[in-house]
Amino acid sequence: MMDLRTEERQALDEYIIKKIEDRGVSLQQIGELTYFLQEKYYKDLTVDDCVHNVKAVLLKREVQNAILTGIQLDELAEKGMLDFPLQDMIAKDYSLYGIDEILAFSIVNVYGSIGFTNFGYIDKVKPGILRELDIKDDSKSVCHTFLDDLIGAVAAAAASRIAHSGKFD
Amino acid sequence: MMDLRTEERQALDEYIIKKIEDRGVSLQQIGELTYFLQEKYYKDLTVDDCVHNVKAVLLKREVQNAILTGIQLDELAEKGMLDFPLQDMIAKDYSLYGIDEILAFSIVNVYGSIGFTNFGYIDKVKPGILRELDIKDDSKSVCHTFLDDLIGAVAAAAASRIAHSGKFD
Amino acid sequence: MMDLRTEERQALDEYIIKKIEDRGVSLQQIGELTYFLQEKYYKDLTVDDCVHNVKAVLLKREVQNAILTGIQLDELAEKGMLDFPLQDMIAKDYSLYGIDEILAFSIVNVYGSIGFTNFGYIDKVKPGILRELDIKDDSKSVCHTFLDDLIGAVAAAAASRIAHSGKFD
Amino acid sequence: MMDLRTEERQALDEYIIKKIEDRGVSLQQIGELTYFLQEKYYKDLTVDDCVHNVKAVLLKREVQNAILTGIQLDELAEKGMLDFPLQDMIAKDYSLYGIDEILAFSIVNVYGSIGFTNFGYIDKVKPGILRELDIKDDSKSVCHTFLDDLIGAVAAAAASRIAHSGKFD
Repeated sequence: MMDLRTEERQALDEYIIKKIEDRGVSLQQIGELTYFLQEKYYKDLTVDDCVHNVKAVLLKREVQNAILTGIQLDELAEKGMLDFPLQDMIAKDYSLYGIDEILAFSIVNVYGSIGFTNFGYIDKVKPGILRELDIKDDSKSVCHTFLDDLIGAVAAAAASRIAHSGKFD
Repeated sequence: MMDLRTEERQALDEYIIKKIEDRGVSLQQIGELTYFLQEKYYKDLTVDDCVHNVKAVLLKREVQNAILTGIQLDELAEKGMLDFPLQDMIAKDYSLYGIDEILAFSIVNVYGSIGFTNFGYIDKVKPGILRELDIKDDSKSVCHTFLDDLIGAVAAAAASRIAHSGKFD
Repeated sequence: MMDLRTEERQALDEYIIKKIEDRGVSLQQIGELTYFLQEKYYKDLTVDDCVHNVKAVLLKREVQNAILTGIQLDELAEKGMLDFPLQDMIAKDYSLYGIDEILAFSIVNVYGSIGFTNFGYIDKVKPGILRELDIKDDSKSVCHTFLDDLIGAVAAAAASRIAHSGKFD
Repeated sequence: MMDLRTEERQALDEYIIKKIEDRGVSLQQIGELTYFLQEKYYKDLTVDDCVHNVKAVLLKREVQNAILTGIQLDELAEKGMLDFPLQDMIAKDYSLYGIDEILAFSIVNVYGSIGFTNFGYIDKVKPGILRELDIKDDSKSVCHTFLDDLIGAVAAAAASRIAHSGKFD
């Protein structure tokens, strides 16, 4: 079983957070998305609680693999390094491409089916950082085709993690 | 390969529509959900177009199997015929049950990943008939734990079918 | 958020194991399926290690919900209490029904995408208890349409849990 | 709705087949995998029938998107153009990466849940071209981390398409 070594795994945990921040998204902003989704259900919940749960989601291997792959494709699209027609599909966020959603689902799935509704909802409503990413997308030099779905999925997974914990019921 | 005979298949196509109507939902109401999801993208789209696509979705076998199974569980829960603790989980629509969403996904999936966002969105916003089903749920004698997710999923799948057809672009 | 109380949750953990045993499957037999899947990758692995991982899988809520729902449908089909045509689809294990696989996937999914290959493999090869369940199915009085997929899925999920743990690498 | 133009869509249908062939896999070889999966169920089935169904699967948009994305990642990994640690995960086919399986599922899913068992089975048993791809992988210059899962998924989806058609029952 070929795999990363333990020290590489730990370095990866930090690298994922740095990578997301380099792409313009803070853990605080993801936590705010989770708070947006959950505040009406748990009156004692704080944004800090949400950030704590976002961090726990980001330690999961399936989540890390989806994030690494999606951001890589966004970055290659920005540099024009993908082949036709994939370059256009990703750089221009074609509505029927769908692989961005598929990677997002693999994140949401980690905490079960209850997260899909939340993911779909924030993906449509686009609160907070998701709105900012969507606006940036319209400029030519950046590509967030995968990033916005990945971030929404992490926020939705953190919301599921809170629901499963039973801690704020 | 044990399967239904051809004439049973055709009878099933009609039975599914009748079953949904018996549970209080018309094809027109599902079409209105699809229209709610798609009207901003396609200016020539009508509710009739949406109902046409809903009917096409309801001919798909995976869709029929999910609907038959989900409505059966709703009906058995209404009659109190399920064992503890499943009876309570379904009759009281426990938030962490999740099997209702899983059956809904198998419907949305038929037209690919692009439908999940729409499903999540209407499941949260609950327009039209989904609002009515939600209100009925609070009365003791009816159970729509599966039905509301199934109906939302059919509407979202019909929206995906419209997007894939390219007809209204 | 309507949910089970803590003491009900603990009782459920025991009930799930009892329910599986009542349907004719022991944890030992599920552990043997996991061992069958993993023995060639980890030379120090024992069946006991596998049973330990099976028990951990059975504590997961999504897993419990899928098992409760699937076994309930098997039992109702045995008693002839489902409506036409669902009664025949489940009692006769129609090859295109597919809801049994969908519930199984929700179990496998708990430990990520790597478990699907293992699930598909044992579902075809049918080693150990899966072979016995398949033979029993041919008699008229029992229905294991859901059970065999659920058991295979628990075994595959336990195999994924072992792979993720890195303990036997 | 930003999308490919009709003439681009038609060109893409041919491009997908050419791309797969450029990576060393013929439609005939994929058809043989499907035949391997289905011959025991349908005695009149031929490899030609299977190739016909493989071609139909390859016209589906979700299938094309998954293939384009996966082969692109294989090719970039061969050239060493991905960032650490994704470069190693894909180039060395790390067992816990899992995104290759996720893209494969989006292909299998197009014809419903019944295809997953077949996908898992051939992915383990590795008949025909899957064995050849696996052996080539061990040489340093090529990467088929995504390709073998994509090809297995197309073959499994074609098997599901045959089962759904009812034509060979």
